[in-house]
Amino acid sequence: MKIYYTDDHLAHHPKAEVHRGKMVTPHEGPHRMDLLMAGMKRAGFTDFTEPPAFDITCLDGVHTPDYIHFVQTAWARWKDAGYAGDVLPMSFPYNPRRAKPPIEIDGAAGYFCSSADTMITETSWTALASTAACALGTVESVAKGESAFALIRPPGHHAGADYMSGYCILNNAAIAAQALLNKGMDRVAILDVDSHHGNGTQDIFYARDDVLFASLHGEPDHHFPYFWGHKDEKGAGKGDGYTLNYPLPAGTHYPAWRNALLDAIAKIRNFKPDALVVSLGVDTFERDPISSFKLKVEDYPAYGADIAKLGLPTSFIMEGGYGVPEIGDNAAGVLKGFSEG
Amino acid sequence: MKIYYTDDHLAHHPKAEVHRGKMVTPHEGPHRMDLLMAGMKRAGFTDFTEPPAFDITCLDGVHTPDYIHFVQTAWARWKDAGYAGDVLPMSFPYNPRRAKPPIEIDGAAGYFCSSADTMITETSWTALASTAACALGTVESVAKGESAFALIRPPGHHAGADYMSGYCILNNAAIAAQALLNKGMDRVAILDVDSHHGNGTQDIFYARDDVLFASLHGEPDHHFPYFWGHKDEKGAGKGDGYTLNYPLPAGTHYPAWRNALLDAIAKIRNFKPDALVVSLGVDTFERDPISSFKLKVEDYPAYGADIAKLGLPTSFIMEGGYGVPEIGDNAAGVLKGFSEG
Ligand SMILES: [Zn+2]
Ligand SMILES: [Zn+2]
Repeated sequence: MKIYYTDDHLAHHPKAEVHRGKMVTPHEGPHRMDLLMAGMKRAGFTDFTEPPAFDITCLDGVHTPDYIHFVQTAWARWKDAGYAGDVLPMSFPYNPRRAKPPIEIDGAAGYFCSSADTMITETSWTALASTAACALGTVESVAKGESAFALIRPPGHHAGADYMSGYCILNNAAIAAQALLNKGMDRVAILDVDSHHGNGTQDIFYARDDVLFASLHGEPDHHFPYFWGHKDEKGAGKGDGYTLNYPLPAGTHYPAWRNALLDAIAKIRNFKPDALVVSLGVDTFERDPISSFKLKVEDYPAYGADIAKLGLPTSFIMEGGYGVPEIGDNAAGVLKGFSEG
Repeated sequence: MKIYYTDDHLAHHPKAEVHRGKMVTPHEGPHRMDLLMAGMKRAGFTDFTEPPAFDITCLDGVHTPDYIHFVQTAWARWKDAGYAGDVLPMSFPYNPRRAKPPIEIDGAAGYFCSSADTMITETSWTALASTAACALGTVESVAKGESAFALIRPPGHHAGADYMSGYCILNNAAIAAQALLNKGMDRVAILDVDSHHGNGTQDIFYARDDVLFASLHGEPDHHFPYFWGHKDEKGAGKGDGYTLNYPLPAGTHYPAWRNALLDAIAKIRNFKPDALVVSLGVDTFERDPISSFKLKVEDYPAYGADIAKLGLPTSFIMEGGYGVPEIGDNAAGVLKGFSEG
């Protein structure tokens, strides 16, 4: 399996995050890639491919032009305003948002964001372009009928068409799915196994019937992002029925989690997609510092094999997974289970 | 003029605020009352009245039961969850919010909030009850045809029916207006002269025709709270036409500010209210650290006299004004100008 990777992720390294009452060192940072890479190598993955060049048209249909402009210019505007540190949103609108964002960057940052844990630094765009490019790399492989992995950070599944959230700024899984459709596929399924709800991905495709979105995650009454991912969120308009949410309680162990996964897999099979995108978060692990599921190291290859039974060319997009060495073993475990399954 | 005051405001003293990229000592804190009190005394105001007992039914029709329950229990729930410091919201919903807030307090805090500058401490409720009680004190005076001042903090005009924002948790001006209606008045006008838009007050009365709300403030493209206070926000349903917004550019000097004030006063006169509530923020001052208008000390008595020409029994409710000794002189100046005008 081809693994798309570049060191450009280092360009995104915010220094702070608002978390449970204080400013802390972000859980999402370059150290995650060290842990991921070490696990990949332990599992025997040593062949990494540079992504193709980033093509900004890959954001068409995924993110709005206003939002992209905000992401690209936010840090310079923040500095021009004389503010400290990196772009840290503080004031948030209730919808319906007006058609145009405020001009003042402090206000625009809140307009284009839904959580104060997500910051933009001077060089973030370089890293973001690289995550999108790696996602596009997997699309090249999938278009040839092969599966591939985008080994990237920061993650993307909390980012909507016009907002960042939960460390996510560009939605790489959505970029991959849209690129596959652009290549002539009729239907693409996205399976989000990160422990958090993929609210951004859901939102981007909520009214569409060409992308089926299925997410397993901590139920929103108790888990970030809190406001989305309920069972009754099923899509809208012609997208009705094409969003599938599997909210699961804190402390869920593998057997119950796998039951949900198998149900999602059955529904993906019925959808008859041409390809699959997996939002591969491994913060389902029992010792993840910010999540609450109880998956063990041996469960990751097992569910990789379950996903393989779909028989679909698959784009794996790295999402969350924090703070422990096992995140690398677990990401690699899914890929191994899938390849061998 | 009766001035309602109690030391209970000391019970609300958050230690931090997210502001323009970092955690800072809050601009809103007990030191503001020292500055306000010193200015009041310089102006010859020495007679302060303890407020009546707080009666929680004064929140009926102003704040929702779910929100009140959140405010009263948030700090204990935050501590039970093992989180640091005071309640600091981080993740914010886009509307439409679901009917019920998330159970996890980190999520509930964002559900009931729209800006990360607003925190709830262990003893905040004591201070909040005292600000509402002082507002009710002014209502007792106004019901007798007298004007009065609630010398309080934290301010209230950014707090909506079910959200806190901009240092504001209970909306004291709305509480005063509703209490006046409850005493049998038919119509009450609220004039908000704080340099920030009174989005919470606007929101609470947006669909009602018994309260006219008029606000002069920094135009939202460049000023907090950014997402409300545009000229085209005029009320909804039977409240259509009963919200009046006067967004003004950064750097506005007194003559232009006064033109807007006189227009608002004329429209309040046409509304024929039985009483007036003034959201008295003095962050319009030229050296206010977080605002951008250019009013001078001598302008405050002048506009107090303008307000007096309405000939209405008036409840003055303290709102913003930060960081400089003149906030006390300016608040006192409005009251003197009003009393002598
Ligand atoms: Zn996650
Ligand atoms: Zn203000």
